[in-house]
Parts: sequence; C-alpha cells; structure tokens
Amino acid sequence: MAKSRSGVFEKEASELLNRFNASLPFDKKLYKEDIEGSLAHAAMLSEQGILTKDEANSIALGLKKVLEEIESGRFVFDIQDEDIHMAVEKRLSEIVGEDIGGRLHTARSRNDQVALDFRLYVQKNSLHLINLTAKLINTLLTIAKEHTDTLLPGMTHLQHAQPINFAFHLLAYMSMFRRDIGRFESSHKRNNFSPLGSAAMAGTPYPIDRDKTAKELGFDAPMSNAMDGVSDRDFALEILFNISVLMTHISRLAEELILWSSTEFKFIILSDEYSTGSSIMPQKKNPDVPELLRGKTGRVYGNLIGLFTVLKGLPLAYNKDMQEDKEGVFDSVETAVISLKILNELLKTMSINKENMSKACAKGHLSATDLADYLVTHANIPFREAHFITGKAVARAEELGVDISEINVKELQKIDGRIGDDVGRFLSLEASMNARNSKGGTATSATLSQIKEIEEWIKSF
Amino acid sequence: MAKSRSGVFEKEASELLNRFNASLPFDKKLYKEDIEGSLAHAAMLSEQGILTKDEANSIALGLKKVLEEIESGRFVFDIQDEDIHMAVEKRLSEIVGEDIGGRLHTARSRNDQVALDFRLYVQKNSLHLINLTAKLINTLLTIAKEHTDTLLPGMTHLQHAQPINFAFHLLAYMSMFRRDIGRFESSHKRNNFSPLGSAAMAGTPYPIDRDKTAKELGFDAPMSNAMDGVSDRDFALEILFNISVLMTHISRLAEELILWSSTEFKFIILSDEYSTGSSIMPQKKNPDVPELLRGKTGRVYGNLIGLFTVLKGLPLAYNKDMQEDKEGVFDSVETAVISLKILNELLKTMSINKENMSKACAKGHLSATDLADYLVTHANIPFREAHFITGKAVARAEELGVDISEINVKELQKIDGRIGDDVGRFLSLEASMNARNSKGGTATSATLSQIKEIEEWIKSF
Amino acid sequence: MAKSRSGVFEKEASELLNRFNASLPFDKKLYKEDIEGSLAHAAMLSEQGILTKDEANSIALGLKKVLEEIESGRFVFDIQDEDIHMAVEKRLSEIVGEDIGGRLHTARSRNDQVALDFRLYVQKNSLHLINLTAKLINTLLTIAKEHTDTLLPGMTHLQHAQPINFAFHLLAYMSMFRRDIGRFESSHKRNNFSPLGSAAMAGTPYPIDRDKTAKELGFDAPMSNAMDGVSDRDFALEILFNISVLMTHISRLAEELILWSSTEFKFIILSDEYSTGSSIMPQKKNPDVPELLRGKTGRVYGNLIGLFTVLKGLPLAYNKDMQEDKEGVFDSVETAVISLKILNELLKTMSINKENMSKACAKGHLSATDLADYLVTHANIPFREAHFITGKAVARAEELGVDISEINVKELQKIDGRIGDDVGRFLSLEASMNARNSKGGTATSATLSQIKEIEEWIKSF
Amino acid sequence: MAKSRSGVFEKEASELLNRFNASLPFDKKLYKEDIEGSLAHAAMLSEQGILTKDEANSIALGLKKVLEEIESGRFVFDIQDEDIHMAVEKRLSEIVGEDIGGRLHTARSRNDQVALDFRLYVQKNSLHLINLTAKLINTLLTIAKEHTDTLLPGMTHLQHAQPINFAFHLLAYMSMFRRDIGRFESSHKRNNFSPLGSAAMAGTPYPIDRDKTAKELGFDAPMSNAMDGVSDRDFALEILFNISVLMTHISRLAEELILWSSTEFKFIILSDEYSTGSSIMPQKKNPDVPELLRGKTGRVYGNLIGLFTVLKGLPLAYNKDMQEDKEGVFDSVETAVISLKILNELLKTMSINKENMSKACAKGHLSATDLADYLVTHANIPFREAHFITGKAVARAEELGVDISEINVKELQKIDGRIGDDVGRFLSLEASMNARNSKGGTATSATLSQIKEIEEWIKSF
Repeated sequence: MAKSRSGVFEKEASELLNRFNASLPFDKKLYKEDIEGSLAHAAMLSEQGILTKDEANSIALGLKKVLEEIESGRFVFDIQDEDIHMAVEKRLSEIVGEDIGGRLHTARSRNDQVALDFRLYVQKNSLHLINLTAKLINTLLTIAKEHTDTLLPGMTHLQHAQPINFAFHLLAYMSMFRRDIGRFESSHKRNNFSPLGSAAMAGTPYPIDRDKTAKELGFDAPMSNAMDGVSDRDFALEILFNISVLMTHISRLAEELILWSSTEFKFIILSDEYSTGSSIMPQKKNPDVPELLRGKTGRVYGNLIGLFTVLKGLPLAYNKDMQEDKEGVFDSVETAVISLKILNELLKTMSINKENMSKACAKGHLSATDLADYLVTHANIPFREAHFITGKAVARAEELGVDISEINVKELQKIDGRIGDDVGRFLSLEASMNARNSKGGTATSATLSQIKEIEEWIKSF
Repeated sequence: MAKSRSGVFEKEASELLNRFNASLPFDKKLYKEDIEGSLAHAAMLSEQGILTKDEANSIALGLKKVLEEIESGRFVFDIQDEDIHMAVEKRLSEIVGEDIGGRLHTARSRNDQVALDFRLYVQKNSLHLINLTAKLINTLLTIAKEHTDTLLPGMTHLQHAQPINFAFHLLAYMSMFRRDIGRFESSHKRNNFSPLGSAAMAGTPYPIDRDKTAKELGFDAPMSNAMDGVSDRDFALEILFNISVLMTHISRLAEELILWSSTEFKFIILSDEYSTGSSIMPQKKNPDVPELLRGKTGRVYGNLIGLFTVLKGLPLAYNKDMQEDKEGVFDSVETAVISLKILNELLKTMSINKENMSKACAKGHLSATDLADYLVTHANIPFREAHFITGKAVARAEELGVDISEINVKELQKIDGRIGDDVGRFLSLEASMNARNSKGGTATSATLSQIKEIEEWIKSF
Repeated sequence: MAKSRSGVFEKEASELLNRFNASLPFDKKLYKEDIEGSLAHAAMLSEQGILTKDEANSIALGLKKVLEEIESGRFVFDIQDEDIHMAVEKRLSEIVGEDIGGRLHTARSRNDQVALDFRLYVQKNSLHLINLTAKLINTLLTIAKEHTDTLLPGMTHLQHAQPINFAFHLLAYMSMFRRDIGRFESSHKRNNFSPLGSAAMAGTPYPIDRDKTAKELGFDAPMSNAMDGVSDRDFALEILFNISVLMTHISRLAEELILWSSTEFKFIILSDEYSTGSSIMPQKKNPDVPELLRGKTGRVYGNLIGLFTVLKGLPLAYNKDMQEDKEGVFDSVETAVISLKILNELLKTMSINKENMSKACAKGHLSATDLADYLVTHANIPFREAHFITGKAVARAEELGVDISEINVKELQKIDGRIGDDVGRFLSLEASMNARNSKGGTATSATLSQIKEIEEWIKSF
Repeated sequence: MAKSRSGVFEKEASELLNRFNASLPFDKKLYKEDIEGSLAHAAMLSEQGILTKDEANSIALGLKKVLEEIESGRFVFDIQDEDIHMAVEKRLSEIVGEDIGGRLHTARSRNDQVALDFRLYVQKNSLHLINLTAKLINTLLTIAKEHTDTLLPGMTHLQHAQPINFAFHLLAYMSMFRRDIGRFESSHKRNNFSPLGSAAMAGTPYPIDRDKTAKELGFDAPMSNAMDGVSDRDFALEILFNISVLMTHISRLAEELILWSSTEFKFIILSDEYSTGSSIMPQKKNPDVPELLRGKTGRVYGNLIGLFTVLKGLPLAYNKDMQEDKEGVFDSVETAVISLKILNELLKTMSINKENMSKACAKGHLSATDLADYLVTHANIPFREAHFITGKAVARAEELGVDISEINVKELQKIDGRIGDDVGRFLSLEASMNARNSKGGTATSATLSQIKEIEEWIKSF
C-alpha cells in the first residue's frame, strides 16, 4: 500500500481498507502481462535516453528474475502490495535496488499500466478462444462427414417437422461457431491498440516513443487519446459479449444433447468418461456435462451485465470502480476455455444411434410438406389451398394410425381427386430429405456442399 | 468421484470431467452446514431406529472430528471427491469405517443434502446482513443527531433546490436501509423450511421424522413437497435480490460521498485511514472506498441475473445446471458483508465540513419556493401564478448577482406589488428549512421526530 | 410543457426536447391513480383550511369530469402537456378556471405526485397478481385431485429417476406459486406507505395532514422521510423481481408442457383452442403458448435489470433518470397478467394421457433405488454398498433387455446372495411410488396430505 | 389466424390465444421490409419459372398497392391476422385474388420470412446509427477546434489531477464513438447474409435462386445453412450490444454534462431549448436531457439481457420464444436514434464557460506531477522518491493555503535542496498542460494532431 501513498498522508491505511481495496488476490493472474509491459517500457525508456543502458539492463534482468520467481511458485504475494504492479515493482526494487527500480515507473502511471496488462490478457485470450472454437468446428465436421445421410426429424417448436440429415443439423452449429470466431477476430482487431504512454490520463512530458512499445507488445499502434487510453474498457465488454454469444450457442447444443440422451429420444449415448452417476439412484447416467454447459451461460451473462453496470455513468477518466472489470472477464474466459474443451471431448466420445434417429422420423408426418409441394407442383394448386388439403390428409392418416409417408394413395385421392398415383415416391422420408436441395438445404448433395465450404474456410486456423 | 458412480459404469470419469464437474473448490465453504445437517440427520435416523445408537454415536463423533480437521486446516481437500458432501463422507468412512460411514447416506440424497446446506448458509447470512445493516443505521443515527440544524442544499437533478439539514438527508438513507432489513427478514421467514428428507426428489421409504430434523436445524417446518424441496432455489434468488437492492442504496450514498469529497463540493473529508493515493500524482487523496462500493453493485446485479438465467426453463426436478447457484451467492454475500463493514467505518471516520455545506446554500436561490409559498399564503395567489412570478424574481436576482435569500424587498415589489415588506424573514435559509415542518419534512423539529422513531425501532436489533 | 417552466426561461423548449422528455405517451396509463391522488389531496387541503370548501368541491367535480372524459375516450392527450399530471391539471383548469385549478398543486410537487401514482399502480397490481396466481393454483389443484395415482417417471437431469404420481409433480409447482403469492404479499405490506406530502423532497410549510391522505388512499401510513418519499423506487424493484421469479416458475412448467407435448413424450395434448399451426407444414400443432410463456421470462428479467441500472449510483433526491422506471413495470405487470390467465386456460383445456405416462415408467429402471433400499433394510447392507450392487443389477437388466421392475429374481440373487425371494414386490412401479410415504413424499397417501394442506390455505384467497 | 391453421385443427383458436400470440401489434413496424422481401421473392420465383410472369406481375402490383395503403394510413390492421406477414398476404389476396395471392408463399415459410424482415430492419438501422454517430462526432469536433487551449482540470476519481484542455477531453469521447461506428460496421458486415430460401428450416424442393434474392435485397450472399437461417439471432444480439456500448459512452458524457451544469462546477450552461423547469421550484433549470440519456442505458441493457435469456438453451430450429426478439430491438434502436439526435443538439446549443473551467484548475495542485517530473529530470531522483517529496510539498502548500502552481520557490527548496530556482516555470498550469506532448497527450500540439487524425477519418462518412 505504502508506495502509492505520498507525503500528503498522515495516517496509514486501515487494515480493512487494504483488504477491501487490494486487487492483488485476483490481478496477480496478470503477472506475465505486467512484466512484458514493463520490459517493453524499460527498453523504450533506454532507447529514448530516459534511462541509461545500464539501468535498463538491470531492470530487465530484475524483471526476468521476478517472472521466474512467480512461475516457480517462490514469489510471496503480500496483500499489502495492493496490486500486481506494486508487487512486481517492489520485488524488482529489492533485487536491483530502490534507486534503479524506482525509475521504472517514469513516464507511466498505474492507470495506463493496468489498462495495458488487462488489454494484453484479453487480446491473447481472444486468439486462444478462436483456436479452441476452430477445434470444435473440426470435431463437428468429422462427425458430420459420417452422417450426411443419417435421417433424423428436423424440429420446430420441438415438434417433428421435416426429415433432415444429422450432418445438416450439425452444420447449423458450425455456422454459429464460425460467426463466434468472426466476432473474436473483429474485436481483437478493433482493440489492438496500446494504451501505454497515456500515463495518468494526460500523457507525459518525457520524450517517450509510444509506437515502439505498441509494436513491441504486438499492437497495431498506440491509442489516439490518453484519456480514452486509461478509461476505455470496450475491449473487456466485447470479449464478455462474444463469450456470451458463444455460450448461448453452446447452451442450445447442450439442450439438444440432453434431450437426445433422454430415454424418450435415445439418439445418442454419452461416453462413460463424460457421464456421471447419482448418489442414490444406481441406474442413472446423467448428462452432467451438457447441463453444466447450459448452466454456465448464467455466469457469463452475469459478468457482462456486471461490467456494463460498473461503467454506466462513470465520469472520465479513471475511477476506482473500474477495478471491478477484471474478475468477471477472467471468469468468463476460463469458463469459455474449459467449456470448449470439454464439449469437444464429449462430442468426440459420444455414440450416435442412427437407428433411433431414423425410427423417430416415422412419427409426425414429416413429409406432409412434400404432399403440399406435390399439389402445387403437379396439380398447380396455390400453396395456401394445398396446405389446407394436406392438413386434412394428415388428419385422415391419424385416424388410420399411419404416418403420412406410408398412407395408401387411395385414401389421399378420396380427399382430393387431383392427387396422382405417383405421389407415394414423393412422400418417402429419404426422398423428402433429398428433395430439399436448394442452396443451404438438407438434401445430402446440398449438405455436402456446405461441408466443403466450411472445410475450406477452417483450413486457415 | 468414485462414490457416486455405481456398477453401471464401465469406464472411469475423465480427468477433464472431474475438473469441470467438481464443485468442491467452492462448495467446501459449506463444510459447517454440511456437517450440521449430517449430525441432525444421523441423530434422527437413530431415534427412528434406522441406525443403532452406537452407529449414530460413531457417526457423530466422526463428523465432529472431520469438522475439527477442517477448521484446523489439516483436512486435505481432493478434487476427486467431487463435492463437500462426498469429501466429508469419505473422510468420515476413513475414521469410523466404511461399514458405518456408508450408513449415513440412508434416506437422503445429495439432492436434498445440497439444498439443505445451501439454504442453511443463506439463512445464516441473512441474519448476519440484518445485523450489519442495523449497525450501519446506528452509525448514521449518531451522525444525524449532531447535524439536525446543519444546513446543506437539498438537490434534485443535482441542482440546488431547497435548503435542508444534513440529518434529514441521512434519514433518507436510514429509511432505505430499514427496508433492506425488512426484505432480509421477510425472505428469511418465507424460506425457513427444511428440504431434508426430500431425498432424490420423491421422498423416501424409510420412516424418517422430517419435523425433527427441521426443528433441530432451526427451521420452522419441513418443506411441503419433496420435488420442490430439491428444485427450489427461490431462497437464493431472494438473497441475491435483497443484496442487489442494498448495494443500489449503498451505490447512491457512495455517489454522494464521492461528490461531497470533490474539490467542487468539499462537504466532507474522508479520513486518511480510508483514503488512497496515486502512483503518479502525489497530491491526491482518492475516494477509492466509495468508488469501489459503487462499482461493486455491478457484480451483485450480475450474480442475480446469472442465477435467473440458470433457472429459466429448467424442467423438474434437480438438474446439474443448479450447481451454478452457489458461487454467485457466496460472492454477493461476501461483497455485502465487507461493503457494510467498510462503509460503516468510512462514515465514522470522515469529517463533515458544516461551513462549506452552509455556504453552498447561498447559491442557487434555494428559498425561491418560499417566495412562491408566501405569494399563495399571504397574497392568496394560485400556486401556478405564484410559481411564474417567482421565476421572474429569480431572474432579477441573477441580474443583480445576489441570491434570492438576500435580495432587496423593493426589487421584489417592483415585480409584483402584492409582495409585503415582511417577505424577507421567509426567505432566509434557516427559516426556509424550518418552514418545511410537515410530517417527514426537513424542519429540525420534524427531523427530530424521524430520528426518534427510527431510534425506537432499531433498539430491537 | 409550458406549465412547469417559470419566468426564469427565455426560450421555449425545442420540439425534440418535448418529444424526448414527455412521459405522457406511457404514463397516461396512470390517469386513474393520478385523479384518485388529487381527489384525496384536495379533500385534505380543504379540511385543513388550505383550500376553501367551495374550491375543493369545484376541484373534485372537475377531476371527476376529467376522469369521465378519459374513460369515455373523449380526452385529447397532447404531448405538449409533458405528463399525465400536467395533462389532467390543465384540463381541470379549463373546466374550473385557472384561478381554482391552479390551487390544486399547493403543498405538493410532481415529485411526490408521480411517486404516489406509480406506487398506487404497483400496489393495486400486486393484489391483482395474487388473485390470478391463486386461480392458477386452484386449477392445478383440480387437476391434481384426479391424478393422485397416475404414474409418471420422476426425472432428474431429464433422466428417468423414480416413479411418482402426477399430482405430486403438480404440487411442486403449487409450492412455487404459493411462495410467489407470499412475495407479492410481503412487498405489498412493506411498501404500503404514502409518499404524498413529501413535496419536492423536503416537505412543505403548509399545515397538511399526511395521515389523512395516506389512509384515504389505502396506505397504512405516510412514509417517514420526504427525501426518501420522492427518491425511493424499491417498490418498483420488488414487483419486477417478484414477477421475474413468478415467470421463472412459469418457464419451468412451460418447458415441461413443451416436452410433454412432443412426439417423444406424448404425455399431454394441448387443446385446439390453445394450439397453433404452421404456415408451411400442415400436419403441425405447435405449443406456441408455453413457448411464448417461456420466452417472456426474457423481457421481465430485462425490465428488472433495466431499473436496477437506472437507479445505480443516483444521488438524492429526484433525478429525471427515474422517469425510466415506469415502462418496464407496466410491461412486466401486463406480461404476468396475461401469462397467468392463458396458462390457467391452457391447463384447464389440455388432455392428459395417463397411459403414456404410465408406459414411460417401464423404461429406465425407475425402481432401482428400491432395490438399494431393500438391501439396506432387509439385508442390513450399508447404503453405499447397496448402491453399488444395484448398479450391477441394472447393468444385468440392460443386458437382458428388461426393466429392473420385471427382472427375474434369480438373476438378482446371482449378483448378491443376500437378496431374498420377496424382492419382487418392492420393485413394482406402483409399490415403488407408494413406498415413498415420508412427509412430502410421492406416495399417494402423502400426496393427499399435501393436497389437503394447500386446499386449506388457498381458501382464504 | 385462420391461414396458418390447416385442416388438422378441429376448433378455432381462442380469443385469448389470438391476443397472446399475435405479433402484429409490434411487427407491423416491419411492413416495408416484408413487402420488399416478397417483391424480391416473387420476382425470383418468376425468373425460375415457378410463377408465371403474369402471376408475378399481379403480385408485384398488389404488393405495391398494399404498401401504399399502409403508408397512407388506410390499411386496417386486424389482430386476427396474427402477424405482418399474414396481414400483408391476406390483403394481397383480396386485391389479386386468392388463386394468385396464395402462390406467393411457395418455396418459403414464415420462419425464413420473419428472419429476413427482421434482419433487413437491423441492417438498415445499423447504417442509420453509423450516420447519426458520425454527425455527433462532427459536432464534437467543431467544439473541440475552438477549445484546444481551454484549460480545465483533468480528473481521476472525480478529483483534480492534472490540467488538460477541453478539446483533449472531448477527443476521448470521439475515440469512443469512433469505436462504436466500428462495431456497427463490423456486425453489419458479418451478418449481411440472406436467410430467404431457408423455408421452414430445411430448404425447399423448388428450384429457387437464393443468390438472386440475396443480391436484390442488398446482402452479400445467402446464409450457408437453412437451419441456421431460421434460428440465428446473432445479428439482433449484436445490435443490442452495440447500442448498449454506445449508450454506456453516452451515459458517461451525460454524467459529466450533469456535473458541469451544477452550481458547484458551472463549466457549462445548457440552452433553454434543451433545459426543463420544476413544477414547484421556480428558480430551477434542470438538465433533464442528460439525465434521461443516462437513465436510458437501463432499458438498452435490459433489452440485451432479455434477448439473451430468450435464446439460452433453445433447441433448434425455430421456436415461438423467438417472437420475443423484436420489441427489445425496436426499442433499443429507437432509443439510440433519438438519443444521438438530442445529444447532438444539446452539445451544439450549450454554452461553455472557459473562465470557470480555468479557475477550477487553480485548486487541487494540478501541477504536482510536474514537480515530481522536474525532480526526476532535473535532479535525477528516482520517480518513487520524487513522488514522495512532492507529497510533502503539497502538504506544505495546503498549510500555506496556496496552490502548488503558485508556491514560493524557497518553500520548496526547504523541503528538498535539489530543487532549482527555475522550478516555477514548470509549475504553471498552462506549462503543465503543454508539457504533456507525448503522442495522444493533452498538450495543445498533441491535441491538434488528434483532431487532424479524426477529421481525416470522419470525412468518409
């Protein structure tokens, strides 16, 4: 604590304040980014003649020693040091001496330092999440390629609607995850600017070279305005949002995995390695993983709304409220990372019951739309009227206890004389699926095109 | 993990699953509640003849030993144990032998066990928060009693509106915090029912006595329906909401403390023990504490929306998603606890600059309403017309560069002839404040009544 | 607009400001509460000698005329009037003359007026929602009474767990809705205090009688502190939260209705009056109603977080931000009202397929726990061991392709010799359900007790 | 309603269902997009030979007539028509005859139709919001150019920190709004794909040309997968998020405008056209506009969380819950549109009090950092030590009742002998501001560069 308290204070901070105020318990996660930032800063200070070569060298060696101490677990984190920045700098000064260590903070402030460290963390993890999402898409692709003619009921309103193939269904998720990658990419690009050199919020009188540190740290350029540099947290909101959308997609897939694992569906069986048991009901295998994936959407939405609340109505520039920006981001990132990993494994190890998927198609008159389409195409009946006639045919099938795909043609002709003897072949489930061969449709041929397109795209990841 | 996996599984759970699935890293916080619950359960099982006296005694001694090991820090938490329930039970079995330890779980399930532990935590902490909030009100009362005639500008729209006294202003916060206590009390009462004995979700065939365990654990009665017993999380939503409202109130007070500490206001000075410095600007004393208090509203809102999201659309009864219920509640409770404590200290140690408060009243024509009221009361002018005339008087005062409380009567009479020579004594700031002596008003007399009422009420806490 | 602009303004408000600022388009919904409040205020002013009897009478007659004009649709709402308070008062002044109409606003402000109107709305609707929720519980009770021995699979993790009866399942929802009523009751009680007389925020110099207007308007007493009177919106947060919990419960039931309506479950059939069709798939009957009920949880959560955001960090007393308090509350209240009504009708008109529910119990080894319990009770095996043995029995049943309820006793005895010949009668589904006769359990007898208890309680509504 | 109910239904929908289910009351806002989509669809059907030229012509003429009827206010919206799609189609059929009108719905479904209409709305409005945000930046630029040497206190923690110029402060907001534009641009690009032709969710057997309709409607291409086509709402989440960030930025500026308008700051005066009065306090001019701007962040956050909640855990493909996607988006878009407009006017018409801004700089020892920097640069003292020495100097200045910028050099030299006689010129406020001439810093020269850069960029809008 002591370090940031100048001679203007007469009393020490209270113990309770130290505990309340300290961010060290969570921001120590940023040790690497903090040291990277300091190394770049010190090197630049030296090149600009603000530090001597020797001072800069000592600092660099000292910082690397601190890094090594932290990574080996020997570093002692002391809540009195308030935050990771002070903790690292204090230790540095112990190593290289106060006289040299105390020069590292020249021409910067904790305001730009924390903005830098946090931004480095977010940028790194955006790339990491892109990578993991790409892996997930690859797994989905592998499964899809084996199931381009595996029939299952396409549903709307959780009601059987039309026969589709399983690859086509999975491609819907690949489309979602592809957009997720797009979002991480575009926020990464939009926020790839360095706040370092903003100092407290007004810049600094020292002749620093912000372009140099920006480049050194992997940014495209320095941020344009120092006040914005220390008060901007858009990058944090963006990763929280992107993760929220990603987890929404995962929650939808999780819901389906849960349904498909149920006794009623039995479309898939989760592997033993990724299932759990019950403490009281010995027969049970529970889909805990997809349930938790679904449940974890809650925390990531919460983290998003949490940071929005923090930022709402804050005057410029830095306010201490903004210290509340980190924990939610750490939590969302870690949640997304493990969720992507375990979902990937779950999908790889689950068994798919093609037979049950196919059997399910025989219920619910899935080819009813095909009858309507037949009436339009072969009997030139307006769609709305065809729709109504088909409704009657379905009602008749229900009475007879058969699916529309298996109804006797005579029964259909009783309902409308314009129905031809050839209608049967349009109503088979496979025919129905393959009929929908418009671009993006479920026909095996259209499905294969979609697979090819996404396979081409994913190569670059 | 092993324990809840029956003979139905052929493969071990994967390492990743164990890590993803385990709640032990956070639910170990419930060790005390878990052991309390088990003690009550075992005692009841024994009284009902389901366990022998000896078995129950062994279990009780074993559990107390486990408790002691945890509290002394000797207990080794192993993520393989999945959750606190399994961790405690496994250790118990090591102590008393598998044959006896394995009997504790008779007639219950983890579903009702976790519902019990979590509810006990929430109930305890509701009472704790009531206590801390009462302390805060007491501190506010102490300050208020010294400031029943300390003038400051009452504001609406952050514009000077009418002169009030500082005690009156603080009483608004006491009213808020009093309702907060009311909310904790009523949710505590509404949820004071025991889920224990709900078992997996359908009750149990063992002749258990739920009334007994309920009473033993401080509940009013057992919950009515076992399915609700394991799937209800209303109590968790309620504490999250109550804390959100509490923190909203705290954020409003925090905002005012920040404003009042600014150079522009200078109404208060935060003590050195509860202020912080800047790493770059040596002259600064920053109101970090109220800023963090304001910022922490974000996380508690996030936790609330997080749990709502988890529960939305979940079919009965228990689903693994619900494991996501705890971390948010722990975080909100701990946030509220430390926030109440530090706010209390901050208020106790801050200095109040009566002079600056009073000086501020001389700006902004705070007694303009009194002129309007005078016109109504003494000249029988309808309020709307009086309001318009006063507007003109204020404009004239602005031209003259004086406050309406100090304007020359002649000037007023030029604007409206019905204004009497006696108007001056209605326009002084103190007179204005004391004029508002309606029930709940700011007059010192009305303020004293409010103090008396809340002092009477707070005694019972 | 004109009315609240005093002589201090030199220019008219811009057209854009009028449009942005006006609350009339939505707060006209409060016309009744506004007039009720004004009637009570005027009557009190007269009793206290602040208005003459004649003035008060004119005002009362005028206000009633305004009410009649609004309810008959003849009233012309003009956005220039800014809000419902100004709109009503302006029309009043047209009717009774400016000289008398202008006196109504004596001793109050729009700040306490809007707080009053809004609070009256919330209090009324809390009672209305209690009433509608009680009706829903009555409908559930009626259904439950016919299904106390209708078997269906009790689920956890959407996996078949134990056989339960349908009434028992519905009782879980009745418990939830009962707590919902409790929440509306307690927030109604906690907030049943009148802000009228708080004036701008500091009270008023007029000798008003706040107890009188409070009582007249159905409140228990006036609010204690005028500043709190105009800035408190806890009552609005509370109804938003209570509705959010209610809708969460509804969303859970809706999810189950959707599942139960699916081809895979077929436990219920929604009536034609409450089902919808597809524009393209003629065979479909869609559960649009429960889907919309589930979806509407989104908006009510949104309204809650919206108001929290508005209030976060607002300094005292009234700020214009608070005008944003109403639309969300109106929307949530109206959503809850129609949701309760339509859910009630949906439940009344749906058909329950007992046969399918019962058939579903034959899958999933629902009585596996009973085998474990048998081992504990009849063979004195510790629960944990019994649990493991049962797992093996289930695996064997799977191999044989039978449900555990129908497995040959010999097979079980091969697994563990301690299993007696009498085990079969414990494993039947009905026996299993009726075995769970602990308090709150699913046994028909226990279910009947629960029905009786809630029937007794609901009578008072 | 009738139209989507096929012959499978025996009873009519209930009145309550129609009211609950209908989206017409809000989705009629999409009439234009709906008709545009149908025109493109019909033209394509004709080119592909699915409709005859004559049929297509009749439909096109009919649709234009419907459009004209709606825009002239003659169209009668009937809730029985359920949604805008049915309403338009029914009227079309009345105009061109059922036999032709009934053919328009060939090869599409309401699922892709609504996805299309809504997406068109979002894309259009993304561009509109870019435009309005660019206008706002232009206004800020105009103001900034006049204030590149207007001193005001730069603040952190709402405490005076360092002297900056007003243009520099405004540039921080320009940076934020520039990123907002970037977000609208990138989500517009990512989502610029057409769902039309996805039909119910599986594509269609008709030989449609999706590329053609996509291009016709301004999209880059059709969406890849039909199931994703009907169930994707990422575009809606993205605009809700982008608006939430935008409004967060606006709320921060609004907070500052409110502070600056207060008696304590008096940095600006809002114009009469954009200020409001009080119904009871005639002297007041209230900053209602920035208060409402700040308050309206609540509803846009609420709308975002609302849609997330709706989508969480929804199985594929279309579910009725998704009807809840529109109202929130409409509300957020309309909120953002009027907020940007009125903020723009507010800024244009406000007066800036340079004198008060400058005077404020004389309080708070704003050039204290300059003393520390002087010690580092001129006396080669490590920053940390310089920081501590400066703290003592500030304490001494406080004792003497002067600002550090005006302290006698002798006093400083008493504290540390290394301070030279030339220190004074570093401590003047203007010198301090202009010293911070690092890239992005507050020095007038650096500020001018920032202005130039953003001026260059904004030209393209």
